[in-house]
Amino acid sequence: MEGGAGRGLECQKIMDGKASDGNGLVEAIPSCCLKARASAPEHEAKCHSTVVSGWFSESQSCSGKSGKQVYFNNPMWPGEAHSLKIEKVLYKEKSEYQEVLVFESSAYGKVLVLDGIVQLTEKDECAYQEMITHLPLCSIPSPKNVLVVGGGDGGVLSEISRHSSVEHIDICEIDKMVIDVSKKFFPDLAVGFEDPRVHLHVGDAVEFLWHTPQGKYDAIIVDSSDPVGPAQELVEKPFFETIARALRPGGVLCNMAESMWLHTHLIQDMLSICQETFRGSVHYAWTSVPTYPSGVIGFLICSTEGPPVDFINPINPIEKVEGALNHKGELKFYNSEIHSAAFALPTFLKREVSLLHDATSSTPKICLS
Amino acid sequence: MEGGAGRGLECQKIMDGKASDGNGLVEAIPSCCLKARASAPEHEAKCHSTVVSGWFSESQSCSGKSGKQVYFNNPMWPGEAHSLKIEKVLYKEKSEYQEVLVFESSAYGKVLVLDGIVQLTEKDECAYQEMITHLPLCSIPSPKNVLVVGGGDGGVLSEISRHSSVEHIDICEIDKMVIDVSKKFFPDLAVGFEDPRVHLHVGDAVEFLWHTPQGKYDAIIVDSSDPVGPAQELVEKPFFETIARALRPGGVLCNMAESMWLHTHLIQDMLSICQETFRGSVHYAWTSVPTYPSGVIGFLICSTEGPPVDFINPINPIEKVEGALNHKGELKFYNSEIHSAAFALPTFLKREVSLLHDATSSTPKICLS
Repeated sequence: MEGGAGRGLECQKIMDGKASDGNGLVEAIPSCCLKARASAPEHEAKCHSTVVSGWFSESQSCSGKSGKQVYFNNPMWPGEAHSLKIEKVLYKEKSEYQEVLVFESSAYGKVLVLDGIVQLTEKDECAYQEMITHLPLCSIPSPKNVLVVGGGDGGVLSEISRHSSVEHIDICEIDKMVIDVSKKFFPDLAVGFEDPRVHLHVGDAVEFLWHTPQGKYDAIIVDSSDPVGPAQELVEKPFFETIARALRPGGVLCNMAESMWLHTHLIQDMLSICQETFRGSVHYAWTSVPTYPSGVIGFLICSTEGPPVDFINPINPIEKVEGALNHKGELKFYNSEIHSAAFALPTFLKREVSLLHDATSSTPKICLS
Repeated sequence: MEGGAGRGLECQKIMDGKASDGNGLVEAIPSCCLKARASAPEHEAKCHSTVVSGWFSESQSCSGKSGKQVYFNNPMWPGEAHSLKIEKVLYKEKSEYQEVLVFESSAYGKVLVLDGIVQLTEKDECAYQEMITHLPLCSIPSPKNVLVVGGGDGGVLSEISRHSSVEHIDICEIDKMVIDVSKKFFPDLAVGFEDPRVHLHVGDAVEFLWHTPQGKYDAIIVDSSDPVGPAQELVEKPFFETIARALRPGGVLCNMAESMWLHTHLIQDMLSICQETFRGSVHYAWTSVPTYPSGVIGFLICSTEGPPVDFINPINPIEKVEGALNHKGELKFYNSEIHSAAFALPTFLKREVSLLHDATSSTPKICLS
């Protein structure tokens, strides 16, 4: 997950627990969306402070032990934290938009952190990148034109490259530093930028989409940072409308959509907007990513009016895409069974998110081969 | 997950990083199974120490802030920890077998901890309890006799109670303190003990199984603590042999089987033993439980020789079991779609665990209605 459009100050406002609705009014943010502020890591903290602290380290004076152990404390939501032991900090710099941090962890390989939130680790990035890419691309026949919003690490590009039918890939990433850092520290992901079909646009995705010809893309993948709180542009209706406009009839969107355990109100809001905007079908899917909050990540997956799209039973199964399974490395997580299974939702989610309850009742029979 | 048979000292040996093979030889334990020792929580620690520490708290002297914030640090495996903010410690006592701790967390409701490892939280216990119960019971027609190994919190009993076909439920839990604590602090789970079909046996499950008539049970559910390392009795062949002996032909076992992200070698070992022991079918399934290591938990699910069992497409779907959906409260997580989807495995797991690769190639087509 990388910085897409509309981040920066707006996001910081949300992290502070309130957000402007654009008219100067301040709205309260649900507590589960109050991510800890971690943009100023406490590198030299002598003690673990609170869950709000971005970092903590062993204090030699308190423990009396030699050797300093440094942990990265991934703030999730109030009352919880996930900590990773740091072997070595490899990079730490403030870009124009966010703080970019890369460290070598002892258990997850290298880790990319933006504004204090873990974006990817070498150990489990496969689940996120493969799912957000192949859920949409395997659901339509012969995708040709694809847009990635965010995705500056290149991992999604690398996955799109597996599809030999694809002719043109645009990527709009707002933060060049993310791309540069990825090329240096995550070459296996950033290799995606080397595909000659890729056209890089460094800039704001909302603006980019306004200048996109109507119906240009077969698929759009929004690989953005957390859409935390109602004020963030990437979960607002105008953004989804520009996405829908840029898709061909029967084109598909796959958008990162948070945790079913934590953000049911946000999922409901996003589904509500998308059901108004996308006249084809709208679904929610999820998968396991250990280093994301609550160990899962969800995907909002929609199609525009046009040829119907059966998201649950992929028409373009990855196992039948020529060369896809071994293109620059094997798939690690995704397969057609995992694809279909991702749409099976827990009962509490269907109950809490009324739009999913409605959607599921019309869900076609899922068959996994 | 509760203490079943064979815990205590043996488990502590494993936590220390070595285990006896029974012949006095000491074997190294894979690092991912080296759970942090947390049976002596550092309640009064002045600093966060290391991931090995069971507890840490904010030090007023270091932070200079008023008010003490206490976190429970759930040790997972080297290099990682999951922390929960504690509102209030409700119970802390050493039983004959383990340390039993209950606290009120700010984000997950009440939490039960045994020997420093989170066993359940009110927020996410539904996923584990409902899956470990209904995966086996919905896979056979009209289950009548069921045995639970461990499960002292009563949650699995409570789920079994939904099945009106069940006539007799034995539960063998080694640690009476777990039962008593659950009745006091988790009445919604412990209500399972009140079902007149339930027969409680406080004792060692291995011994209990030796005295069980052959073929007595339709289903056995092993709701044990972590089977960490090769020495622990509950993941050894003799234990599975007594289970298989106690099951009727075509009877089923569902056994907690750790994380696919962390313990592939253990999953391989358990599958290997079970494929030798259970002549029907052997499968692996998984689901999302945020407070378990890496956010997932797996299930080993097997049947004995006899009438074939289709685990993936449940013959006894919960939606058709009379009164099941609302028996003493609604189901929160499980449904027939989630049941079938749980058998869809990531590619890396099928690759790393050769027995799953083989098993999957003969997997019948999965259909979710």
